[in-house]
Amino acid sequence: MDDRILLAHGSGGKLSQDLIRSFLPDLANPILNRLDDSAVFEANGRLAFTTDSYTVNPIFFNGGDIGRLAVCGTVNDLAMSGARPLYLSLAFIIEEGLLIADLKKILASIKEAANEAGVKIITGDTKVVDQGSADKIFVNTAGVGTVPEGVDISAANARPGDKIILSGNIGDHGIAVLSQREGLKFNTPVPSDCAPLNGLVADMLAASANIHCLRDPTRGGLATTLNDFAGQSQAGIVIEEDKIAVDKAVLAACEFLGFDPLYIANEGKLAAAVAPGDAEVVLAAMKRSKYGGGAVIIGEVVAEHPGQVVMKTTLGASRIVDIPVGELLPRIC
Amino acid sequence: MDDRILLAHGSGGKLSQDLIRSFLPDLANPILNRLDDSAVFEANGRLAFTTDSYTVNPIFFNGGDIGRLAVCGTVNDLAMSGARPLYLSLAFIIEEGLLIADLKKILASIKEAANEAGVKIITGDTKVVDQGSADKIFVNTAGVGTVPEGVDISAANARPGDKIILSGNIGDHGIAVLSQREGLKFNTPVPSDCAPLNGLVADMLAASANIHCLRDPTRGGLATTLNDFAGQSQAGIVIEEDKIAVDKAVLAACEFLGFDPLYIANEGKLAAAVAPGDAEVVLAAMKRSKYGGGAVIIGEVVAEHPGQVVMKTTLGASRIVDIPVGELLPRIC
Repeated sequence: MDDRILLAHGSGGKLSQDLIRSFLPDLANPILNRLDDSAVFEANGRLAFTTDSYTVNPIFFNGGDIGRLAVCGTVNDLAMSGARPLYLSLAFIIEEGLLIADLKKILASIKEAANEAGVKIITGDTKVVDQGSADKIFVNTAGVGTVPEGVDISAANARPGDKIILSGNIGDHGIAVLSQREGLKFNTPVPSDCAPLNGLVADMLAASANIHCLRDPTRGGLATTLNDFAGQSQAGIVIEEDKIAVDKAVLAACEFLGFDPLYIANEGKLAAAVAPGDAEVVLAAMKRSKYGGGAVIIGEVVAEHPGQVVMKTTLGASRIVDIPVGELLPRIC
Repeated sequence: MDDRILLAHGSGGKLSQDLIRSFLPDLANPILNRLDDSAVFEANGRLAFTTDSYTVNPIFFNGGDIGRLAVCGTVNDLAMSGARPLYLSLAFIIEEGLLIADLKKILASIKEAANEAGVKIITGDTKVVDQGSADKIFVNTAGVGTVPEGVDISAANARPGDKIILSGNIGDHGIAVLSQREGLKFNTPVPSDCAPLNGLVADMLAASANIHCLRDPTRGGLATTLNDFAGQSQAGIVIEEDKIAVDKAVLAACEFLGFDPLYIANEGKLAAAVAPGDAEVVLAAMKRSKYGGGAVIIGEVVAEHPGQVVMKTTLGASRIVDIPVGELLPRIC
């Protein structure tokens, strides 16, 4: 049993201490190393604060794992408010019996993703629950970042005339996780697009002071994100189907499974509403950035049909893109 | 099925939105109401940041529930760094099938505890997992607070001569949860002591600038907290058994179950190391505070046996108080 997590690893006693100390070399930084009840850091100005729990199944998937997802997801939520992500908290709920080797792999991947995003993990928590009371491991991260002066980005800020920019092809993450979970084999395996987007957002903000909305289309996909923009801004949105790129293997999987890629989760893409005069310069900045090579203008904000997203299809028709009522893909993030 | 949580409530679609909007009236504040990917607030100076996941079983217990616990636990972790708690994040992992009425009760209790502690919930997340993949509901809260100028509290700051003050009787929370879970009936039911301690800490800090260590003895109990002080400060601690109050019903339960109250979790108590000259004034301030009525000096920090906690027993003997190796009471918080 030496190679598995025991209830005692969550007890607060010696085994807990040993486990937590075994994490430290991977995550070490002067703030975390104090191991007090809270981490303390200096801050000045506006701060962004966000949280997400990650329950993805399976915990390891093509292109990532629950550790990389837990860092990127929260970094991206901060970045979508225009913030520079600085610090994360990290909380594990572990099912008794998890292989310690799996936990170490997840930690290594947390370390790598945090390094890539330039964030530090400064506080944490580990709970262990009895077998059958959780599914392997759940991870929660909360994050804080600084919002640069003058930046005011919100899903409520879209204005008629704004261009809608999408940073790349959609649907990779959802299809990667689903196909692995269900044991579906496609000719070309689809890797998740899971990536930290704070660098991309920084490049966009450096190019323009007129970025109005930013959001990463995770659960509910691009359709839900655009409906958030339209709903919260009380504006209409029109997008063109033929501008939205979908990887061939993702499209094939969607057709096979009866899914619409507009509703599939992404973990390394963003949608933006940008003032029309700045759209081209933002687009150019995105294309030069590591995770924005596939950026394209897919539509615009209009004064008509406030709260509604309309798509011009490749056949020339128009259809309303609504948000999904129910569950398409459970435990995708 | 209208009265239970469905997978679709975690989908990011319409049912998710409806559920989240049903939370809002309970938690509403201008920062939360924006519903962007991050909450944004103003900060200046030193900030404390902490996180904890709560997996307590049962979710409703005598004297509290998982909601009250999730607010108090994180508020207390902030307070133990000397911080004034300001904001919390709130993340649910819900097992499909949870009664919506139970979720509403938990939310009401979160609201009540947050009001009592004077903190606002400004960002959140809800995930739903399939039946059998979690146990009813897990809650994560992260918290931020401001550390007043000049305050420097750490488990590493104890110095020989410091007095050890305990805010009240120990063991209530652990015994309350355990007896309810195991269906144990004692003559006098024990309610949990679950409470926000930021007011008590504020009163202590107003009385003295020489509070060196603060910690709430949760998992692992008072024994583990004092070992943290001794280990991180590389000092010895001597405590007197007859100064440590234990409720009669808690003592009876511990004797019946073979537990030592020193190792039982508390959720509304704190231990402090205070410079000797200020110990009496801090003690007096604690006794006047809502949750410090039972405060007492239980021992002191010594130069001898660094890293070790020694207890003088009521019989006049001395014994080493070590930290527990394994799990005494799983899922107590």
